[in-house]
Amino acid sequence: MKDKFLALIASIIPADHSLSGEAQAHLDDLTKPQGSLGRLEEVALRFVLATASLSPVIKRKMICCFAGDHGVAREGVSAFPSEVTPQMVYNMLSGGAAINVFARHAGVELVVADMGVNHEFADHPGLVKRKIASGTSNIAEGPAMSEDQAIQAMMAGAELAFTAHSEGHHLLGTGEMGIANTTPATALYSVLLGIPVDEITGRGTGIDEERLRHKKEVIRRAVAVNAVRCTTPLGTLAALGGYEIAGIAGFILGAAACRVPVVVDGFISSAGAVAAMKLCPSVADYLFFSHLSNEQGHRSVMESLGARPILDLDLRLGEGTGAALAMQMIEAAVKMYNEMATFSSASVSQKEGE
Amino acid sequence: MKDKFLALIASIIPADHSLSGEAQAHLDDLTKPQGSLGRLEEVALRFVLATASLSPVIKRKMICCFAGDHGVAREGVSAFPSEVTPQMVYNMLSGGAAINVFARHAGVELVVADMGVNHEFADHPGLVKRKIASGTSNIAEGPAMSEDQAIQAMMAGAELAFTAHSEGHHLLGTGEMGIANTTPATALYSVLLGIPVDEITGRGTGIDEERLRHKKEVIRRAVAVNAVRCTTPLGTLAALGGYEIAGIAGFILGAAACRVPVVVDGFISSAGAVAAMKLCPSVADYLFFSHLSNEQGHRSVMESLGARPILDLDLRLGEGTGAALAMQMIEAAVKMYNEMATFSSASVSQKEGE
Repeated sequence: MKDKFLALIASIIPADHSLSGEAQAHLDDLTKPQGSLGRLEEVALRFVLATASLSPVIKRKMICCFAGDHGVAREGVSAFPSEVTPQMVYNMLSGGAAINVFARHAGVELVVADMGVNHEFADHPGLVKRKIASGTSNIAEGPAMSEDQAIQAMMAGAELAFTAHSEGHHLLGTGEMGIANTTPATALYSVLLGIPVDEITGRGTGIDEERLRHKKEVIRRAVAVNAVRCTTPLGTLAALGGYEIAGIAGFILGAAACRVPVVVDGFISSAGAVAAMKLCPSVADYLFFSHLSNEQGHRSVMESLGARPILDLDLRLGEGTGAALAMQMIEAAVKMYNEMATFSSASVSQKEGE
Repeated sequence: MKDKFLALIASIIPADHSLSGEAQAHLDDLTKPQGSLGRLEEVALRFVLATASLSPVIKRKMICCFAGDHGVAREGVSAFPSEVTPQMVYNMLSGGAAINVFARHAGVELVVADMGVNHEFADHPGLVKRKIASGTSNIAEGPAMSEDQAIQAMMAGAELAFTAHSEGHHLLGTGEMGIANTTPATALYSVLLGIPVDEITGRGTGIDEERLRHKKEVIRRAVAVNAVRCTTPLGTLAALGGYEIAGIAGFILGAAACRVPVVVDGFISSAGAVAAMKLCPSVADYLFFSHLSNEQGHRSVMESLGARPILDLDLRLGEGTGAALAMQMIEAAVKMYNEMATFSSASVSQKEGE
């Protein structure tokens, strides 16, 4: 398994920057003042370079929502009980969760992946079962999982991306569901990006001041108790992550290997993205950060990565909701690139002096 | 005409804030942590109150792109020649402009209204002809138009909103096309909001430093030469506005009279919105500001209004492009309100202690 994982990482190459001049010239020839579509022009350009095609296409779009439970929930770090993880998976499978609404709205197909929920699900067409274990171990006491399990989860995520690619999806998105998962995500940021726990620990689903203090202490304990294991990105992901977070990291690696851009949802998904970027820096070329989460700390994380998310709507739900909404903007950008008239084709006069 | 105009303004009533408690309770019962969909929850709530319906509906959506020419273009305030106004109208009618791409993408119908272009258009299914005059007079030398003409333009805009309402459009948007129109828009802001010309004058379609200095001087001259006419919102709009800007103001007034929310595009459209708000403060309840324009000054304008636009994508194109994109977010918010499961219906456990 580890060989396959290393081969996956070795197969990822950077975006094709050699197309940059031609793509920019096309953007500049569209009937608008140069640069006037701002960040959508940047999005279109990045999409072209990532897919290495001057005729970018988005036909099918898919979001994979990775679900997992967390041993650290026992420490009382979340406002909701762990039973909500499988309940929300059922809610997604019956179409009633926010991600279902936004995915339908944006024309995005949704797959829910059980990576490590503490519940046995019956078969369901919208569910893929990739359970590594029934929840992680408590990171406040030791590692969340073994490195082998982290690789297993990443390879399962990567396989989902390969399948999506072979089915003709041109844009993928991440989502997650897992009660207590802001805790491992924060611990991962703290180690992988070197950001102080105090700065990035937030209220998750809505905890009060006292529980927030407790959560910070639990995260500091998790980082301390696992310090010896956190000498590599893989070791850190295994020690402090979650099965859904590792699934997201693998999904991103798999998509990048296929040159399929990935829209990263919010606070938790970004932790999967950071893990993937630490394992293979080139994946950054394939990522669109969808939105600036209202979860405290996401701003520090985005600044640390030099990323400016597409949307800023104070969302803090996860599931892939921000990814679904941002996909609409990315699709608009690609359509702009493909469908707008050029100055010459539309007989529109250029800027004076040009 | 003036009587009809005053009757229109008198017919506009504020949003129905009495529904606020029930609407908020519904939002809080949806399967997500309370408030976790952030600004989309605010959008849904405002939509409910504006339309005075606890069962909000968005079936048809329409953007009206108002076009007009400006006498002040003769002062050399724009990077593009005036002939681009009719050229871009033709581009829109043949489907090649950015607004066509984004409107198709967002499922929005587009109407182009000739309010005052210096060109005679043949009949075309996507064009409504409401020309008041072939461009405004030069505001650097005197008033753009008479107050009667401003009222005529506003009533034409209002009639377009009435028609859209009767055709079953539940969400309207504004757009505009008019070479040199950042100049009158800036002059209007300066007088109606009392913001210094230096602070809000920007580069429009992309002028250089020298032309920017010249543009500021032209705007200051326009404000000075018209000062005597700028004692009322109507007088100011007539003296410093444009036919497309007056059309937008009227469109907003007409929509508000029908309780139809309006998505305001960028820098120019916001000037129409400010004029409408000065004529009738209650229209604010029906407005969604779509995006923070990259045109310098829009941030000051939004801050002055206490408004936080939905998107921030560095757009500075106009046409209604930002409105079309923001409509996708508003529609997502309304669908969230309508389609999400509740905690009880989905058997999801509530937050602990609730």
